[in-house]
Amino acid sequence: MTLLSGAYVYEYQVRSMSDTVHLSLDEVQALALRVLRHHGIIEAQVQAMARVMTAGERDHCHSHGLFRLLTCSQSLREGKVARDALPTVEHRSPALVAVDAQCNFSPLAFELGSELLIEKTRSVGLGALVINNCLHFSALWPEVERLTQAGLCALIMTPSHACVAPAGGKHAVFGTNPIAFGWPRANAHPYVFDFATSAIARGEIDLYRRSGRTLPEGWGIDEHGAPCTDAATVLQRGAMLTFGGYKGSALATMIELMAGPLLGDLTSAESVAIDGRPGGAPRHGELILAFDPRFFSGRDPPTDQASAEALLQAISGQGARLPSERRYAARAHSIAHGVDIAAALHRDILALLD
Amino acid sequence: MTLLSGAYVYEYQVRSMSDTVHLSLDEVQALALRVLRHHGIIEAQVQAMARVMTAGERDHCHSHGLFRLLTCSQSLREGKVARDALPTVEHRSPALVAVDAQCNFSPLAFELGSELLIEKTRSVGLGALVINNCLHFSALWPEVERLTQAGLCALIMTPSHACVAPAGGKHAVFGTNPIAFGWPRANAHPYVFDFATSAIARGEIDLYRRSGRTLPEGWGIDEHGAPCTDAATVLQRGAMLTFGGYKGSALATMIELMAGPLLGDLTSAESVAIDGRPGGAPRHGELILAFDPRFFSGRDPPTDQASAEALLQAISGQGARLPSERRYAARAHSIAHGVDIAAALHRDILALLD
Repeated sequence: MTLLSGAYVYEYQVRSMSDTVHLSLDEVQALALRVLRHHGIIEAQVQAMARVMTAGERDHCHSHGLFRLLTCSQSLREGKVARDALPTVEHRSPALVAVDAQCNFSPLAFELGSELLIEKTRSVGLGALVINNCLHFSALWPEVERLTQAGLCALIMTPSHACVAPAGGKHAVFGTNPIAFGWPRANAHPYVFDFATSAIARGEIDLYRRSGRTLPEGWGIDEHGAPCTDAATVLQRGAMLTFGGYKGSALATMIELMAGPLLGDLTSAESVAIDGRPGGAPRHGELILAFDPRFFSGRDPPTDQASAEALLQAISGQGARLPSERRYAARAHSIAHGVDIAAALHRDILALLD
Repeated sequence: MTLLSGAYVYEYQVRSMSDTVHLSLDEVQALALRVLRHHGIIEAQVQAMARVMTAGERDHCHSHGLFRLLTCSQSLREGKVARDALPTVEHRSPALVAVDAQCNFSPLAFELGSELLIEKTRSVGLGALVINNCLHFSALWPEVERLTQAGLCALIMTPSHACVAPAGGKHAVFGTNPIAFGWPRANAHPYVFDFATSAIARGEIDLYRRSGRTLPEGWGIDEHGAPCTDAATVLQRGAMLTFGGYKGSALATMIELMAGPLLGDLTSAESVAIDGRPGGAPRHGELILAFDPRFFSGRDPPTDQASAEALLQAISGQGARLPSERRYAARAHSIAHGVDIAAALHRDILALLD
C-alpha cells in the first residue's frame, strides 16, 4: 500500500462532480467520531480530531476534512500513533506552557494547551505553547482562529517531512513548513492566513505526474539543482522549491529552527528519516505564539482596532482579496446547507469501519 | 531639495570605483560621532547611532552605513526629530518592555530596551520589546545580532512608508516592511536574515528610472494594477509589489498589523501620510521578540544545538548560501583592513559640518 498523499483528495474531488453524498455538518462530525472511535483512539482525542476535521470539511478545505480519516487510519495501521496516550502538560513559566503529545495526534494537545496559553497571554501580554512529539495532520487556521476568538493575535508554525530544497541548493532539507497568522476583528471574521512555504503542495505536483502534465517553472528542481518541470523527476530524484526564492527559503529555515530545535524537537529532515519517505502524518513539534493587543498597545484598544480596520479595508477596498475570504464564504454556505462529499471518498471512509 | 532615497547610495558606489577615501573602522566611527554631535543630538543617542552606522559600513551594507548621516541630517533639517529627547522605558509585564523613543531616532531606544528584554526573556523564556514613536533608519540585523550574542533567538519587524500594493490590488498600502530573524550558534556566526517584503528596494527602482532601463517583471504595477516595467510609472502613479505573490503580500500585512496597530503605533500608510511622500527616516513603531532556547527545548541545549547545526550544514553543505555569509566576510575584511568610502560621499558628509 502506498502512502496516501494529498493528491488523492484532489482525485476524489474530480471524480465527485456528479456522484456525491450530501451530509449536514452534524452528520460529518458523527461520521468522524464513529470512525475514530472504531480505531480505538482515546475519547478526548476523538472529540478534538472530529472537531478539526468537521471544520475543514465545513470550510471546503477538503484536504483537511474527512479525507484525513484515511491518512490518520493509515498512520494508525503503520503503528506510528500512541492511540491511547494522554498529553502531559507542563507550566514552564508565566509565559510558556509545553504539552507533550506522547506520539498521539496533535489536536488534543492543542486543546489542552491553548486554554493555558490564553490565560498566560492575558496575564503577561504574550505567551508560547510548545507541542512536542505529536503526529500532525491538521491545518493551522482552526488553531489561529481559536486564539483570535479570545481576542489575541496569533502566530503558528510547524516543520513537516523534508521534500523542499533551499534556494541555490539541490537536496530536500525543508518540509512544506506552514506558517499561519491571525488578527482578531471586532465586527468581522478575523484576518487569517495559513500557507505552506513551499511553492505548491506536494499533492499538486503528484497530480501533474499522474496526468503527465509539465510543471510550471519555479516549483521544482532535478537532482543537480537545475530547474525541472518533470513532476516524476522532482518527486523521485529532485526536490520541491520554496515560494519567493531566497526569501522564502530563509523563512522555511526560520520555521525549521523555531518549530524544531528551539523546541527540542525534530527538523523536517529528522522527521522524514523516521518515516522513510514524505507523506502521511509526520511526527514533530509545533510552536504557537499569542499576543494580547491590550498589553502591546498600552492604549485604548478601539483606537488600534480602527487603525487595523483601515489597513484591512484599504486592501479589500481596492479589490485585493483577504486570505481567508473564500473559507468564510464556504463556511456560511455549509452551515446553512451542509456539504457534499465525494461518494467515492464516503465509501472509502465507511470501509474503514469493516 | 528632494528627499534622499536609497538610490543615491548606489550612485555613490558607482562613482567610487577609483575615487575612494580609505578609513579605519575607528575613523568611520569618529566621523559619525563628529557629524551627529555637530547636529546637536543628545550624546547617548549619538553613541548608539554611530555604532549602528559603523556596523553597516563595516559589513558593506553601504545603504545603512555612513550614507545615513545624510538622510538623518535631512530628517533633522525638516524638523521631524526630537534631537534631545531621551526615550522613556516602561515595564509592562514580566515578559514585555515598552520604550517610547519620543520622536528621536530608534538606536538609543533599542539599546535601552534590549538589555531589559534580555533579562525578561532569560527569566520567563520569551519576551517582547515594543518601540514606539521612533524615527527609523537602521537595518534590523545589528539588533538581531545583539540578541543572538545573548544566546537568544530573535524575530524583529517594522513597517515603513507605504509604497507597496497588496497582491491583486492597485494602490500602495504596505511599506517595504522588513523582517529579520536570528539564531545563536555556539561556534559560528549566528544564522541571520534581514529582508524587505517588497520584491526589491525602492532605491533600486529609482536607479532603473534614472538610467532609463526597463524593470524586470514582478517588481511593480501601474495605477490600474496592471504589471508595469516602467520605473517612473511605478514610482509616481503605480506601486511596488511584494516578493512571493499573495504569500509575500500576506506576510507584509502581518508585519503592518504586528508592528503597527498591535503596538498602538502607525501603519505604513499612516506614516507616509505624515511625511507626504516615501523616503527619509519614517516615523513608526518596531516589534522585537526574543526566545530563550533553554526554556523552549526543556532539554540539554547542546543536543538541540546539534540538530540546528545539522540543518544549517545540510543547507550550506550542498552549495546553498546562508543569508548573512557575505556580510560576515565583509566584516572580517573591514576589521583587518578598514573600508573604502566613495570620495563624493565623504565630501558630502564633511559638508554637513559646515
